[in-house]
Amino acid sequence: MTDLAELERRLQRIEDERAIEKLIASYGPLVDAGEADAVASLWAVDGVYDVEGWHMGSRADVAAMVRSDAHQGLITRGCCHFLGPAVVTVDGDDAVAVCESILVTRHSEGISVSRIGANHFRLRRVDGRWQITERRTRALDGRAEARALLADGIAGR
Amino acid sequence: MTDLAELERRLQRIEDERAIEKLIASYGPLVDAGEADAVASLWAVDGVYDVEGWHMGSRADVAAMVRSDAHQGLITRGCCHFLGPAVVTVDGDDAVAVCESILVTRHSEGISVSRIGANHFRLRRVDGRWQITERRTRALDGRAEARALLADGIAGR
Amino acid sequence: MTDLAELERRLQRIEDERAIEKLIASYGPLVDAGEADAVASLWAVDGVYDVEGWHMGSRADVAAMVRSDAHQGLITRGCCHFLGPAVVTVDGDDAVAVCESILVTRHSEGISVSRIGANHFRLRRVDGRWQITERRTRALDGRAEARALLADGIAGR
Repeated sequence: MTDLAELERRLQRIEDERAIEKLIASYGPLVDAGEADAVASLWAVDGVYDVEGWHMGSRADVAAMVRSDAHQGLITRGCCHFLGPAVVTVDGDDAVAVCESILVTRHSEGISVSRIGANHFRLRRVDGRWQITERRTRALDGRAEARALLADGIAGR
Repeated sequence: MTDLAELERRLQRIEDERAIEKLIASYGPLVDAGEADAVASLWAVDGVYDVEGWHMGSRADVAAMVRSDAHQGLITRGCCHFLGPAVVTVDGDDAVAVCESILVTRHSEGISVSRIGANHFRLRRVDGRWQITERRTRALDGRAEARALLADGIAGR
Repeated sequence: MTDLAELERRLQRIEDERAIEKLIASYGPLVDAGEADAVASLWAVDGVYDVEGWHMGSRADVAAMVRSDAHQGLITRGCCHFLGPAVVTVDGDDAVAVCESILVTRHSEGISVSRIGANHFRLRRVDGRWQITERRTRALDGRAEARALLADGIAGR
């Protein structure tokens, strides 16, 4: 029976990583659809989303961002928050994940890439479901901070 | 033996989801390579591909699209049908998947993003292999239809 | 006990494929962070990286590329080596993987897509860890060579 327990442990690890990969892969479609409550539910109740001078500290804050005039303007013109495949490191009920992203937007002159970003996630299993406790997003504009997010994320820090 | 059966069920679910993720991740490379028959084989024999005023209703139609002057023009100038990580929901022998995509093309002035899209897939396991029964793709141009595809896909509808 | 061995074999296959997917998903974040040694460690000691007239034949060569003025110029202005989800085919201790990629760069006029590419990987399990033995990257500029890399990669060749 030891073998069975070991197999279960290996399977559980994959399930955990995949649950987090799916959560992160859901962010773009949900935020571009304007599904404010569903986006917010990816975060813990008091989860943080810290993005370029916009600090959100709760699910309610995240939902308000999706409903804001700024975001609604983006999605009614057409936009794609395109996140790459996440690299996930699970440690018990905590996890770190990282991915790069591009924001592609439509405007009067056509379609262009408006932003390239580094995304670092901390997650926790709460009530049996993985939730984001902190997401930090920084533009890849040459500054060290964004590059450190990438390096830390891949190292599982 | 119950535990073994339960492990097998969990493993099978991951295998199903991964088979569909791999199928969707294959679309871009195959269509940009011009592999008409291999692209078509991702669909069921009578599978539908409904994309912005182009309705295909069979593998033969999909293969004809890849061989069309319009598509051959794209790939001989250079293009990248770039699909993001798919979010998959399996229910027995049926599944729903969703991802966003960008179409990047080369032209005389350089390289640009020509289209941003929402992609909603219905799949079925036929003869032991997952196949697309219906793919709907709509430009993310601010209209509600594309946004609904994203929301439905994440919800597994 | 046969069933247990069979489950373990199926699980191991997923673990192998996922290890390679994770390795490839780490490339972009690491190279954009400028983590020269970590990028190099994705390759085998004598691994090859053959990219558009730049032939690297060792980990040391790959690290030198990351430290080069050309690459440092890219990351201090801001860039995103954005790789799509990889499609992996494992055969024992050897594997083939393929993905498309876009290179997005910041410059004085804004942000643009500088390159679209086909990426074909050969990997080997060395000392229990998957390592790249050969990566070939070609621009998707209409030529047959890049398209062949995509077709070969999906076919596991």
